[in-house]
Amino acid sequence: MANGKIISIDGMGGDHAPRIVVEGLERFAQRRADLQFLLHGDETQLKALLANAPAAASRTTIRHTDKMISMDAKPADAVRRGKGSSMWNAIEAVKTGEAIAAVSAGNTGALMGQSMLILKKAEGVERPALAASWPTRNGVCAMLDLGADIAATAEQLVEFAIMGQAFARVVNGVANPRVALLNIGSEELKGHESIREAARLIRSSNLPMDFRGYIEADKIGFGDVDVVVADGFTGNVALKTAEGIAKMMSDMLREAFKSGPLAMLGAFLAMPALKKFSARLDPRKVNGAVFLGLNGVVVKSHGGTDSVGFEQAISVAAGMGESHFRTEVEDNLKRLAASIAAGAALAAATQETAK
Amino acid sequence: MANGKIISIDGMGGDHAPRIVVEGLERFAQRRADLQFLLHGDETQLKALLANAPAAASRTTIRHTDKMISMDAKPADAVRRGKGSSMWNAIEAVKTGEAIAAVSAGNTGALMGQSMLILKKAEGVERPALAASWPTRNGVCAMLDLGADIAATAEQLVEFAIMGQAFARVVNGVANPRVALLNIGSEELKGHESIREAARLIRSSNLPMDFRGYIEADKIGFGDVDVVVADGFTGNVALKTAEGIAKMMSDMLREAFKSGPLAMLGAFLAMPALKKFSARLDPRKVNGAVFLGLNGVVVKSHGGTDSVGFEQAISVAAGMGESHFRTEVEDNLKRLAASIAAGAALAAATQETAK
Repeated sequence: MANGKIISIDGMGGDHAPRIVVEGLERFAQRRADLQFLLHGDETQLKALLANAPAAASRTTIRHTDKMISMDAKPADAVRRGKGSSMWNAIEAVKTGEAIAAVSAGNTGALMGQSMLILKKAEGVERPALAASWPTRNGVCAMLDLGADIAATAEQLVEFAIMGQAFARVVNGVANPRVALLNIGSEELKGHESIREAARLIRSSNLPMDFRGYIEADKIGFGDVDVVVADGFTGNVALKTAEGIAKMMSDMLREAFKSGPLAMLGAFLAMPALKKFSARLDPRKVNGAVFLGLNGVVVKSHGGTDSVGFEQAISVAAGMGESHFRTEVEDNLKRLAASIAAGAALAAATQETAK
Repeated sequence: MANGKIISIDGMGGDHAPRIVVEGLERFAQRRADLQFLLHGDETQLKALLANAPAAASRTTIRHTDKMISMDAKPADAVRRGKGSSMWNAIEAVKTGEAIAAVSAGNTGALMGQSMLILKKAEGVERPALAASWPTRNGVCAMLDLGADIAATAEQLVEFAIMGQAFARVVNGVANPRVALLNIGSEELKGHESIREAARLIRSSNLPMDFRGYIEADKIGFGDVDVVVADGFTGNVALKTAEGIAKMMSDMLREAFKSGPLAMLGAFLAMPALKKFSARLDPRKVNGAVFLGLNGVVVKSHGGTDSVGFEQAISVAAGMGESHFRTEVEDNLKRLAASIAAGAALAAATQETAK
């Protein structure tokens, strides 16, 4: 493994690990011949699976451990007693600089907790955030925080905006991302003070950001913005609501098409069109949430995903790891801090003058 | 109009008023021969429309006013300068006791503001809430607050639970509603303290309530609970997200079926099944949000609805107006207050003993 950057992978995390992990790795390795992989977990199982993964096998080093974090582990326990597990070792390889990014489909809380402990918050970041993409009419939109924490101050929302902007550039390939704050519509009850203050902060700062103000949740799918910023509680509720409605509608549609012979024939005839419809909303295409704001890249794959979804998560990890994400965020955080400091100085001076 | 209870209707509110208002009224009047109606707005227009509404016409009194609240009016202006408008007069008739409930498809903020001002908060209610139903796999689920305010304390969330329970009974006909608090999943970040405190309060109180703890937003559609309680900001985001995703998926599906001759033929053959699918998710069937916690019933119809949706909103108003909603809520609020007082007394006694 002398050549090529390395992606570190938790081989044992997720509902269908290690099988879909290695299958996803193989899919990714077929596309990207320039990268190497570190695969953490049970050597016997992983070796057997790699035997059927020719593209990945020659560029993958297995790091054996028989310790793993269960999907229903309590995050605090996983953090306290997680050392040496496949998840822990995957993250650790990023810390040591061996790998450029880590991926796991394991327990979200455990992954966030271990990542925080091992990698620590990046300089200038007050609160890390979980970011992911979701489908819109004409592409995808990045959203954060999806639940790294439950609340956020105005300054933290601006941090999220800065990190989300860089995420949209790196992961979704948007050159100049349009950024908006999630808010509610009622004229006079325009959301929490923290959101309004965040809007003021962004507008008064010198951030190089195409800021579009507020967006209501029903407009996210229109594709008019590339980054939607919310506190972790709100973002998580929006994400889960969207997932729930999409699943319910898909299930109901499937039931409808199975409700009789004519409906089944109709579905059969319309199948290519229906497949295109499903593909536009395929959650696997947007798999891979990134835990932003740490000294290193950690990507969380959906626990129940398949090899196609896991391939996408590795792809997000590679994109983040190879990018200038951290320097871009650092520069903008410095701009933000400077503009907040200037604002405070101005306020102090004004107060002084008023005396 | 000596006999029969009266529903008071804002004839001029909504995107397609007064036409769909009178058409919706006619549809409702055909089903309910025992009720009377007060219709507020432009007499000439309303009279002309009622000429084609035989079931409603004989039981409808028009109260003329040429003042109306525009859909884009600022709520504060609508409240300050709304007196004498069709919306104002519709609510006023509830205050005077003439009508048992009011309905409007007008500006939400204006309607909430005017309702608060005219009807005032009910005894024992700290914060009114906006409640509505949304479709689930096997029926509907009531949700509140959908944005009457942006925040809620633990006590206010319990109030919402009490009002939501009564709403589910009256509007959705659920004998013993299962109630849950909207929360996020991550084990250790189990939502805001106010939500956890609300759960403790409900569990320790003597409320006659089938309380099911927390629910995540992706589970609402499962139909396992009948009432979902959230603060107004979160509830509004969830509602708007659901509306947005449902609309996006419907549009994408329609596009898919128009994408070629085979798809169109397929859609044609599957049409009856697809219509049943659409009917299960028809937003008109759940139209009619109720502003709970005032001295009187005010129902907000979706502004863009048609006559079928407006009929449903009148139906919600009639159900609420004829019910024991207020006494049930009052009784439970008293139970809640007693249990909070008892808790405080116990805490004080414990502290005393500890001295």
